[in-house]
Amino acid sequence: MPTDDELLELAERVGSKARTAKITIGTAESCTGGLVAHLVTEVPGSSAYFRGSLVTYADQVKVDLADVPEATLAAHGAVSAQVAVAMAEGARSRLGADVVVAITGIAGPDGGSDDKPVGLTYIAVADDRGHDVQKHVWDQDRAGNKRLSAAAALTLVIDRLASRAP
Amino acid sequence: MPTDDELLELAERVGSKARTAKITIGTAESCTGGLVAHLVTEVPGSSAYFRGSLVTYADQVKVDLADVPEATLAAHGAVSAQVAVAMAEGARSRLGADVVVAITGIAGPDGGSDDKPVGLTYIAVADDRGHDVQKHVWDQDRAGNKRLSAAAALTLVIDRLASRAP
Repeated sequence: MPTDDELLELAERVGSKARTAKITIGTAESCTGGLVAHLVTEVPGSSAYFRGSLVTYADQVKVDLADVPEATLAAHGAVSAQVAVAMAEGARSRLGADVVVAITGIAGPDGGSDDKPVGLTYIAVADDRGHDVQKHVWDQDRAGNKRLSAAAALTLVIDRLASRAP
Repeated sequence: MPTDDELLELAERVGSKARTAKITIGTAESCTGGLVAHLVTEVPGSSAYFRGSLVTYADQVKVDLADVPEATLAAHGAVSAQVAVAMAEGARSRLGADVVVAITGIAGPDGGSDDKPVGLTYIAVADDRGHDVQKHVWDQDRAGNKRLSAAAALTLVIDRLASRAP
């Protein structure tokens, strides 16, 4: 599981790359509950590139604030690749950010099912060129699953920013 | 400075009181950057009472997503009692939450001035009965100021929920 120092180092790398590329970033978070935004804003000067976050814990907030279509939620469930992508794209528009990473998953200990076990997490990144989405199944406790999701989300942003470099 | 365990204990007390009172909560965060939402969602089962958070780091996001009037920002600045209250009231409506706590401040190390030093922080809580707002001037580093703000915000919610009890 990533340590505090490792998480902070990932956030610093996000900041370094965002500054270099003159790119603004944002997050849309369900299961991580704001942890990714918290880590990004631990970095001094992050207000230069961080626009903000939509922590859309309740499904209705996903719809109202991140513009996730109700039909997408109904068809695929809140923990799905489709909702992760919709959160990222909706938040990108709402926050006015160049790159947004979105996380939706089941942190546990409750909420799992046969189809969607505790630890199942989708992470999507969106920018003006499109989106990527990842599926993970973490095996830690609630706090550990949140941290693993945060590390993966920050890494996905770093990779996306690197792929945009000239 | 509050320890991890002390912060988590405050989040657990928020959860216990919200469950007992059947009250939903949300946060609107600027300088804390999502830390309060992260702490609230460390508690298993918090999805029963936590609606979400607007992490409004950029001023335009405060306007667009938390409905902070541009005139209020222009007249008082983003770090002001007036903006803290506007964030809390705007987010309460946007998130559909019964009680919202909002935090705006200067975490540092940059951004301070003679009038508004690093550490200056306003924390507001709003519910259907009105609002309260507090002013603090913290004296820690960026990470410490965020933690002190988070502890004060959680405490303000606990007090508000206690004051609503029959």
